[in-house]
Amino acid sequence: MAAFSARALPGIPEIRPGEDLAGIVAAALADAGPAPGAVVAIAHTVVSKAEGAVVELASVEPGPRARELALEQRKDPRLVQVVLEQSAEVLRAERGVLIARTHHGFVCANAGVDVSNAGASDRAIVLPADPDASARAIRARLGSPVPAVVVTDSFGRAWRHGQLDAAIGLAGLQPLDDWRGRTDSEGTELEATWLAVADAIAAASDLARAKDSREPVVLIEGLERFVTEADGPGARPLLRALEEDLFR
Amino acid sequence: MAAFSARALPGIPEIRPGEDLAGIVAAALADAGPAPGAVVAIAHTVVSKAEGAVVELASVEPGPRARELALEQRKDPRLVQVVLEQSAEVLRAERGVLIARTHHGFVCANAGVDVSNAGASDRAIVLPADPDASARAIRARLGSPVPAVVVTDSFGRAWRHGQLDAAIGLAGLQPLDDWRGRTDSEGTELEATWLAVADAIAAASDLARAKDSREPVVLIEGLERFVTEADGPGARPLLRALEEDLFR
Repeated sequence: MAAFSARALPGIPEIRPGEDLAGIVAAALADAGPAPGAVVAIAHTVVSKAEGAVVELASVEPGPRARELALEQRKDPRLVQVVLEQSAEVLRAERGVLIARTHHGFVCANAGVDVSNAGASDRAIVLPADPDASARAIRARLGSPVPAVVVTDSFGRAWRHGQLDAAIGLAGLQPLDDWRGRTDSEGTELEATWLAVADAIAAASDLARAKDSREPVVLIEGLERFVTEADGPGARPLLRALEEDLFR
Repeated sequence: MAAFSARALPGIPEIRPGEDLAGIVAAALADAGPAPGAVVAIAHTVVSKAEGAVVELASVEPGPRARELALEQRKDPRLVQVVLEQSAEVLRAERGVLIARTHHGFVCANAGVDVSNAGASDRAIVLPADPDASARAIRARLGSPVPAVVVTDSFGRAWRHGQLDAAIGLAGLQPLDDWRGRTDSEGTELEATWLAVADAIAAASDLARAKDSREPVVLIEGLERFVTEADGPGARPLLRALEEDLFR
């Protein structure tokens, strides 16, 4: 039996820069009374806001490359400038979307820069500088039994429509579950079984929130087999090395 | 509140060609007593087996292209022949993995051909010929309250390690939930919110099974907002059109 459940935690207020997000999550979690080995999935937007990873577009001076890309893709040149600053590399620029590899190594639209939910139309929310560190810092503030923490963002996919939430920061959660080369209950080799645990949990968490309400924090119970006492390696093991990237 | 839960249904036996999978699922479901608006996620391997979508490798005569690719990628030429027959196009052949677009339009490793769990080492399981039709046929046999049916397969990702289960066939489930252009509870536009509902459910379902036991059928309850009375458009809307493919 590996049944699990997911529910959004109520009562999370609008988060502003400098707000004590970990304290707010801890309080909501205490009310919820999580089972041991729970996982808390947090949408990065509130993590970014609490950390001040927010850029006032009015303060941005777009450079020549941003102006050129913005013209070509019909985007706000200030927003494009922010995307370029967040990017190690722009992989595609098509149909108004910039697919970029961020400095962290995530491949996503607009380098994870989000202009929605910013509390004002002239702000951009960028990804946390170190989402694994964000997850660890929040986890350290959560009471006993200590849950795992996943920081999530919604990513598009190369070949499929729509988005799935993916794990960009982790503390206390096994990122992957590698069964390649192992055998199943009948002794047949499980050849291609390499579950992206943290991404599956992130994707599941998004199903537990109503999109039109502010429910950035989701509690998942029943997956304690993936929860670790140590904070562990974070989300980096989920990233393909550049030379293994199937996109190139 | 949009809480949900997922649990694997016990008692599903090994499925052989011609077996009445829908009847077996219906019985397991009746024992579980699903809530109205439930979703049943079924690993395609059992659907393929029941439909006889199984190829005896001993009966396969590899052609010249299969022999060449097999030599280059150090694979069984008979298996490569099966992959080629399942493929509309081979997009990449690297490090022993063929990334192919199947005739259905799915982009995945080895065109979804699976040599594990075949019940014998010399068989390949291929994808169902029409997974939406498979989902509809199973759904038509399930009792009241009628659940949605998702047929799943484990797919790799272009930029990230590990696999997630994705929806390859659907009946009675909304594939995508498009909130682009809509506003959140505070009136801010939800710019990039286009949830791949069916894929998120598929990914979640894989967390509810123990990998080393045979638990191909997972019951998900609490997501009735995505369940439809009509069988609906199936999984096709999840596929990017060729010209929108970010991989090219």
